[in-house]
Amino acid sequence: MIKEDFSMIVILKHNPNRDQMDSLIAWLQDKEITIHTSIGESNTILGLVGDTSKLDIDLIAALDIVEDVKRVQEPYKNANRKFHPEDTVIDLDGARIGGGSLTLMAGPCAVESEEQVVAVAKAVKAAGATLLRGGAFSPASSPYAFQGLGEAGLAHLKTAREETGLPIVTELVDPAQLPLFRDVDVIQIGARNMQNYDLLRAVGRQEKPVMIKRGLCATYEEWLMSAEYVMAEGNRNVILCERGIRTFEPSTRGTLDLAAIPVMKHLTHLPIVIDPSHAVSGSRLVSPLAMAAVAAGCDGLLVEVHNDPARALRDGPQSLRPEAFASLSRKLRTLHAAINSPED
Amino acid sequence: MIKEDFSMIVILKHNPNRDQMDSLIAWLQDKEITIHTSIGESNTILGLVGDTSKLDIDLIAALDIVEDVKRVQEPYKNANRKFHPEDTVIDLDGARIGGGSLTLMAGPCAVESEEQVVAVAKAVKAAGATLLRGGAFSPASSPYAFQGLGEAGLAHLKTAREETGLPIVTELVDPAQLPLFRDVDVIQIGARNMQNYDLLRAVGRQEKPVMIKRGLCATYEEWLMSAEYVMAEGNRNVILCERGIRTFEPSTRGTLDLAAIPVMKHLTHLPIVIDPSHAVSGSRLVSPLAMAAVAAGCDGLLVEVHNDPARALRDGPQSLRPEAFASLSRKLRTLHAAINSPED
Amino acid sequence: MIKEDFSMIVILKHNPNRDQMDSLIAWLQDKEITIHTSIGESNTILGLVGDTSKLDIDLIAALDIVEDVKRVQEPYKNANRKFHPEDTVIDLDGARIGGGSLTLMAGPCAVESEEQVVAVAKAVKAAGATLLRGGAFSPASSPYAFQGLGEAGLAHLKTAREETGLPIVTELVDPAQLPLFRDVDVIQIGARNMQNYDLLRAVGRQEKPVMIKRGLCATYEEWLMSAEYVMAEGNRNVILCERGIRTFEPSTRGTLDLAAIPVMKHLTHLPIVIDPSHAVSGSRLVSPLAMAAVAAGCDGLLVEVHNDPARALRDGPQSLRPEAFASLSRKLRTLHAAINSPED
Amino acid sequence: MIKEDFSMIVILKHNPNRDQMDSLIAWLQDKEITIHTSIGESNTILGLVGDTSKLDIDLIAALDIVEDVKRVQEPYKNANRKFHPEDTVIDLDGARIGGGSLTLMAGPCAVESEEQVVAVAKAVKAAGATLLRGGAFSPASSPYAFQGLGEAGLAHLKTAREETGLPIVTELVDPAQLPLFRDVDVIQIGARNMQNYDLLRAVGRQEKPVMIKRGLCATYEEWLMSAEYVMAEGNRNVILCERGIRTFEPSTRGTLDLAAIPVMKHLTHLPIVIDPSHAVSGSRLVSPLAMAAVAAGCDGLLVEVHNDPARALRDGPQSLRPEAFASLSRKLRTLHAAINSPED
Repeated sequence: MIKEDFSMIVILKHNPNRDQMDSLIAWLQDKEITIHTSIGESNTILGLVGDTSKLDIDLIAALDIVEDVKRVQEPYKNANRKFHPEDTVIDLDGARIGGGSLTLMAGPCAVESEEQVVAVAKAVKAAGATLLRGGAFSPASSPYAFQGLGEAGLAHLKTAREETGLPIVTELVDPAQLPLFRDVDVIQIGARNMQNYDLLRAVGRQEKPVMIKRGLCATYEEWLMSAEYVMAEGNRNVILCERGIRTFEPSTRGTLDLAAIPVMKHLTHLPIVIDPSHAVSGSRLVSPLAMAAVAAGCDGLLVEVHNDPARALRDGPQSLRPEAFASLSRKLRTLHAAINSPED
Repeated sequence: MIKEDFSMIVILKHNPNRDQMDSLIAWLQDKEITIHTSIGESNTILGLVGDTSKLDIDLIAALDIVEDVKRVQEPYKNANRKFHPEDTVIDLDGARIGGGSLTLMAGPCAVESEEQVVAVAKAVKAAGATLLRGGAFSPASSPYAFQGLGEAGLAHLKTAREETGLPIVTELVDPAQLPLFRDVDVIQIGARNMQNYDLLRAVGRQEKPVMIKRGLCATYEEWLMSAEYVMAEGNRNVILCERGIRTFEPSTRGTLDLAAIPVMKHLTHLPIVIDPSHAVSGSRLVSPLAMAAVAAGCDGLLVEVHNDPARALRDGPQSLRPEAFASLSRKLRTLHAAINSPED
Repeated sequence: MIKEDFSMIVILKHNPNRDQMDSLIAWLQDKEITIHTSIGESNTILGLVGDTSKLDIDLIAALDIVEDVKRVQEPYKNANRKFHPEDTVIDLDGARIGGGSLTLMAGPCAVESEEQVVAVAKAVKAAGATLLRGGAFSPASSPYAFQGLGEAGLAHLKTAREETGLPIVTELVDPAQLPLFRDVDVIQIGARNMQNYDLLRAVGRQEKPVMIKRGLCATYEEWLMSAEYVMAEGNRNVILCERGIRTFEPSTRGTLDLAAIPVMKHLTHLPIVIDPSHAVSGSRLVSPLAMAAVAAGCDGLLVEVHNDPARALRDGPQSLRPEAFASLSRKLRTLHAAINSPED
Repeated sequence: MIKEDFSMIVILKHNPNRDQMDSLIAWLQDKEITIHTSIGESNTILGLVGDTSKLDIDLIAALDIVEDVKRVQEPYKNANRKFHPEDTVIDLDGARIGGGSLTLMAGPCAVESEEQVVAVAKAVKAAGATLLRGGAFSPASSPYAFQGLGEAGLAHLKTAREETGLPIVTELVDPAQLPLFRDVDVIQIGARNMQNYDLLRAVGRQEKPVMIKRGLCATYEEWLMSAEYVMAEGNRNVILCERGIRTFEPSTRGTLDLAAIPVMKHLTHLPIVIDPSHAVSGSRLVSPLAMAAVAAGCDGLLVEVHNDPARALRDGPQSLRPEAFASLSRKLRTLHAAINSPED
């Protein structure tokens, strides 16, 4: 029996080129990694001991003499539950995210006018929402489509907050615009920007909570590495948001991955929020998926609500009307209470 | 305004080759399809009226002159809720599947011995299961792995049914073995055989209910076409079972697609059951996903339960132990009651 | 340094439950596996020595105490180039498949009439084809679509062989029909049946070469395990055929994975053939992808050729006309010669 | 027969809510779209005439009354071959990209030192490369990994250009760094930033050619919309680069989609370059895929070449050594000549 803490295992090909193997070992030792070698008739295996978080696993996997590489220790530290067993709870003047509470972030996809966002804010507040969401800078896949009201949109969101007391969450797309977000309560990083590392570092260097949407084809590990980018700069208030991944199914926009809830609860201490509105097409699917997310143990939901979906400039169609959101909100609260009541 | 019932729309390329277009139109007319042509400066569009369910949409899409094709009417009829608005409810001597009830199908992945399956059957019955599941013919991805007890496994399942009264559901892999399944209550078609059309036709020519698992990369429409294969032969007792689709995420076996529940409820009248055990790795994920499935409105669950998971021959690890299943079962019943209670 | 030949590595979770770990170790020892344990502060790693090809890796991966499992030795033996370094070459009365030759399998997707298949056979023979392909039993995704001429189609293929001397390759979908395939030269297993293990075992128990199409979402390893199913029964004449995998891209039927060529050349000694006709939509894409496949080193191509694509019953549209195939065939031969000429 | 140029077709659900339908029609008319309505017994179809490029198709698809939407006209104009039939050819002081030439962009993934990049530049120039590639700002998935030399890296690239005459291509990750790229010849937008619209707009407002890598799960249309973002700002010198998409296959980094070559040649006039180094793991696969790409008709290749792959800081392993690149380069030129020689 060996008493060693391997952080990575490298399986070499049959009869590896000796020079290349020595070169790999020298390169690893250069990085202060200790290596245990196990040589068999058909394979050679290297057990790596030391801090391998700086190693690019793809680099090693791609070496001609390497058959496969397996991390034993996760490449993320700050986001890792192993080192931070307690749930991260974010407190926004009373609106708590994480730690067993159920956060309802609701509002229009895009802010269209002060009138619109204030009206929706009042309606969702009455229906039980705890945060107001709305886009001022809205990335659109066409350069010819509406891209949001920008700074004016941020101003309307603040007016809505003043009138309702709801903290606001809104998306940042460019580090250069960060100074405009001083009054925002939670900064959202969109799915398309999940690996925009300059943006992640920028929000990591300030203190406001950051909600990172999972990229359309981001693995769990890549998503956590994006959280790690923010946390490595000092900001530990990170929220994860699953919004549907891209699969082969052509009839829905995306496939909502609800297994992400228990998986993330296991891997990390960060709160996880589900956005059922973007994953699918048609508001008909929003309610059952919102219910499912709460039953699976998420910390909150991000739901689009619009006072006039049929005339919304963009993304309106998946939106619920305020009355539908109010009904959903009641059902979610009942469900949340039912699953959290002590078993008899 | 036109008063016509288009069943398919064909968008031709800019300046289509005239001969090929005439040839396509002649071919369609041969199939008793009426065609409305709309010619614009940059596109020509054909509106097809008539029964296009026999047309292979891929065939038309692939024609050199065709830019795109869109079905207006679904290619499935028997499985289509439009033509059969009432939920299909399957009655197995009192165990109802569909129509608002919650079916719990539980048992070991593979039948290993009479003793094992009887013990598990008793335990799941006591815990609230309504059907016993267990594999006698078990497809394995390696030819060197255990493939099930075969006929002896079926006999053990029947013994377990006699001792508990639970109807049994088990997988058929070869049409030639159908005669052995005379005493089975529900015949399961596995995900790998979802498009084994000879097998589907064979189970369509008999009367026992058939549960069709969704293929790992089957679209909603392909899944429903598999149901249609069974129903076209006369057997209308079909149950759909979602068990996780294949995606890019490497750390789980599959991604459970719970949007399939509301989507299928809309497209078809057939009951839908969720198998959370195969979608993921580790029994830790089974409970939250089972809860989510019930909250999203599924008609039932297929759950692996094993009396000794650590020593199971195969698939044991995702299995719950009977006591864990009993606890989950209680929570599921509470949840099902909570979401189905009238709103106040 | 350890002198051991590990065949599998199991990474346990932090602080694994001691009972479960002992139970796993006992179970492995029961299977005559020797275990090397390496215990670190944050992880425990088991190195398995012995024949792990019978172990279901998913079973172990899914155990609650297991973090991850890594195979060191491939689960396939007969198909493994490590144990059979020489290329498998299949000889069909002079038409060689594998070993540096370029096989051109051409013909209609579905056999429609004796007249049609004989005409196409003569045309493709004249254009340089070495095998005639054509479907007699044609799986269709709709139960209402044409399913092939069946036994009559096989008879027409044989007539075409008599008239041209071209060996024939055609698809088998049901083990029960195997006796009808006695006069066929190569038996094709379709993508939808790649994991129909009863079918694979059936063709493994006879001697005719078997061409296995890759399933739409089959991994390289699963594809090789299907070859292993055939080979484990005694038939070593297996050909692999890549025909496009399913991805998120909506505008083509599939994504042709040409990296499969060098990957398979490395992992296995079996010949690999590319089917560019099914991967994509529109005959326009067939030629460039066929050229690419030959440049990447494939052993052959499976190309649809039809004498009247616009009136084909099914799958005609991707088909090339004979004159287009003749032109492509010339370019492919030129290309094959150019890349195989000795470098100056 | 209708004489109209439909740009989009909207298929409504059976019995659409009349108010919502009127509201949708009013909203479309507001956008100066003319609507042709076709009402059948089971479906209602709207044919839209006018400029629908500003409409968000997802918005309409997601409306509760909408069954499906189909674009007839592509949402991109500047990148569309229909409106610009001639190939775009980019001229960099003699190094032509597009129009039948074969561009070889070669160099290290990351610039490590002046010595390294100058040595590689000389080697690849001697071997036939026409551009030097190398990363100064290198996005890495871990915040703890090497991120490039930054401005110093750009300086080293310029030195290498002075010594060899090779134009340079290097990646920009943040619009704020654009002023540093004044001396760069081609600006690369990485796959992770393909939908970083602020970055796209920034490079659209200057004149240097921009090479856009396809995102890991970007559809052909999304990729072209990213080109359109650049072109809509005035910069028409855009190059597309395919580098592998993300699929379910776990053993390679990505799946290189070579069908993108003929598809893009059909849809757009922009040149397309293939990066075989990032798609896969192991330099063993680079050569066959590079050959395949040229045979399929690409305009160029982006290949990693490193003078000491075994000690490369990052991404080295997929890199070819200079001598391997020289051998590949000769084979590519022979192949390019062979497929472009007039047919006899």
